[in-house]
Amino acid sequence: MIVLCTDFGLTGPYVGQVKAVLAREAPGVPVVDLFADLPAFDPRRSAYLLAAYADWFQAGDVILAVVDPGVGGPRAALVVDADGRQLVGPDNGLFELVLRRARRTRCWAITWRPAALSATFHGRDLFAPVAARLALGEEPPGSTTAPTRHPDWPDDLAEIVYVDHYGNAMTGLRAGRLPERAALEVAGVSVVRARTFADLPAGAALWYENANGLAEIGVNGGHAAEQLGLRPGSAVTVRGA
Amino acid sequence: MIVLCTDFGLTGPYVGQVKAVLAREAPGVPVVDLFADLPAFDPRRSAYLLAAYADWFQAGDVILAVVDPGVGGPRAALVVDADGRQLVGPDNGLFELVLRRARRTRCWAITWRPAALSATFHGRDLFAPVAARLALGEEPPGSTTAPTRHPDWPDDLAEIVYVDHYGNAMTGLRAGRLPERAALEVAGVSVVRARTFADLPAGAALWYENANGLAEIGVNGGHAAEQLGLRPGSAVTVRGA
Amino acid sequence: MIVLCTDFGLTGPYVGQVKAVLAREAPGVPVVDLFADLPAFDPRRSAYLLAAYADWFQAGDVILAVVDPGVGGPRAALVVDADGRQLVGPDNGLFELVLRRARRTRCWAITWRPAALSATFHGRDLFAPVAARLALGEEPPGSTTAPTRHPDWPDDLAEIVYVDHYGNAMTGLRAGRLPERAALEVAGVSVVRARTFADLPAGAALWYENANGLAEIGVNGGHAAEQLGLRPGSAVTVRGA
Repeated sequence: MIVLCTDFGLTGPYVGQVKAVLAREAPGVPVVDLFADLPAFDPRRSAYLLAAYADWFQAGDVILAVVDPGVGGPRAALVVDADGRQLVGPDNGLFELVLRRARRTRCWAITWRPAALSATFHGRDLFAPVAARLALGEEPPGSTTAPTRHPDWPDDLAEIVYVDHYGNAMTGLRAGRLPERAALEVAGVSVVRARTFADLPAGAALWYENANGLAEIGVNGGHAAEQLGLRPGSAVTVRGA
Repeated sequence: MIVLCTDFGLTGPYVGQVKAVLAREAPGVPVVDLFADLPAFDPRRSAYLLAAYADWFQAGDVILAVVDPGVGGPRAALVVDADGRQLVGPDNGLFELVLRRARRTRCWAITWRPAALSATFHGRDLFAPVAARLALGEEPPGSTTAPTRHPDWPDDLAEIVYVDHYGNAMTGLRAGRLPERAALEVAGVSVVRARTFADLPAGAALWYENANGLAEIGVNGGHAAEQLGLRPGSAVTVRGA
Repeated sequence: MIVLCTDFGLTGPYVGQVKAVLAREAPGVPVVDLFADLPAFDPRRSAYLLAAYADWFQAGDVILAVVDPGVGGPRAALVVDADGRQLVGPDNGLFELVLRRARRTRCWAITWRPAALSATFHGRDLFAPVAARLALGEEPPGSTTAPTRHPDWPDDLAEIVYVDHYGNAMTGLRAGRLPERAALEVAGVSVVRARTFADLPAGAALWYENANGLAEIGVNGGHAAEQLGLRPGSAVTVRGA
């Protein structure tokens, strides 16, 4: 399975061209759109989302992850093996939390280059053909390398990293790392923990462990991000214990 | 074929995770995204859309239908067989109109539970694995049941239930049940029937039988919902005969 | 491979129903969503996008292209063979630039009609079944014809034709036809050429040859369309040489 995690957007021709390359070069391999809307131009916030969601996939799955504001510049192109999942994308921090949380990692710098490489669309021209090869069981077309690391980034990010279409706001905090009775303070409001929406009255705000382990803020039957004024980058403070 | 009808949104990781489960558990079965934008949190309006669109599919097709504001609460999980189409989703009225319009129905309460069941994402953890099994020809993993019925809901819903990206506004009324010369009154404006956009001058409002049998309000070359101030829930009155 | 280029929108049931038809009638053939958001009701601007993007596909690929404000009216339905790529859609100018730029073209009027043809959704009822047949290697189900031509349309369109989700604004101008040192003037601002975003400081506007050969206007790390006030139809003037 090849999993797409990008900031290419749902609209426009970008994801489609990537999938056309994959259909040509890895015919019969299922391709799944996970995110086309990772935080645009923002590898750091994207890295916390990617780590939470990549972990749900399985050894043998290939994750094509592209949030790449430096495309066409000098940043390297990577293949990362994290506990058997293979990730392909730019060396800009996008894999920092995947690398930090995996038990066993290996990393390659992609040295292969396609016959035609556009300046602005390495997702289609470079990363997709490499993902196709990996999905077919080939070796990473490059040499082992040490990726650029970001030791100053925290293990969990106390910010909103994503707002979904219901208005639920995901944080970069793993719920399992928070005190059981912690409240999350966002935009001056303290939000208590609950198990699921159905446990609270309509209109009440809650935080809960989402289905991929992140602490997420919602409103039962409402749009939490609008109601509380949250967007990617909004600060979150952990209160109590 | 497995058909996805949800309010999970086009953005974010929800539909992708459902499709990853289907690709793992029912490899080779085509999966079609029909709606990711059924009216959110609103099984009642969604039920009229679902009935109109499910009817277009064929015996043997499996429809994964999830609009589930009560996820994690006590509502049951259902498999419905309606004239050979199988539908999987929550017992909250979403299947009411499918059940009412089918000639032959059977219903099962899903008693199978996955090893890991999140509190907020039964679409991925419960309904998708069941849909995969059904698509592979297995029996519903549960026991026959009588679904919760909603006899107070009308046979046709005189409201806007969906606005598409052109601005065309679908009603919950089946066009075939309306008098041939009926006008539809919405937001104080009376709209006459036509066969298709090309039959009217640019800028004119019309209602027509859409390609799935619903009465739909459009404006030739324009955005009917903006022009007439329509949104899901707007009342529709049938005038004349 | 069947490639979808439509103005059907990402939301709603239209693309899904087309894909259900393709899954039924051309099982196993990969289907790629390229554009669901071609300029709505606008075959002319769509034609410049389609020509730039269709060219990237290969002989044997089938492109289902539907921007069809005249659906249900008298316009013909076409199959176009352009250097081995086959395109299916309405005879309304959508294929004008594909026809003009191909070395070898043939054209058929589709005379086949399905058992049930809706008035408003020929994409599903007529064009999709024909695309499925072509993808399976069958002959176009019609007779050779001369498509309606639009000799007054320019070879390159000095307008914005598409804004992507990053805010980058594609023009209808092929970059390879512009003088090397040309500037593009849009909304009173002169924008210089660069190779890629990484070549300019953050916040700077540039134009560049996009990955499909069109001249495109962007802002490094920013949203060009908002910053410069651009939308489909905005005029572009080529300055200098």
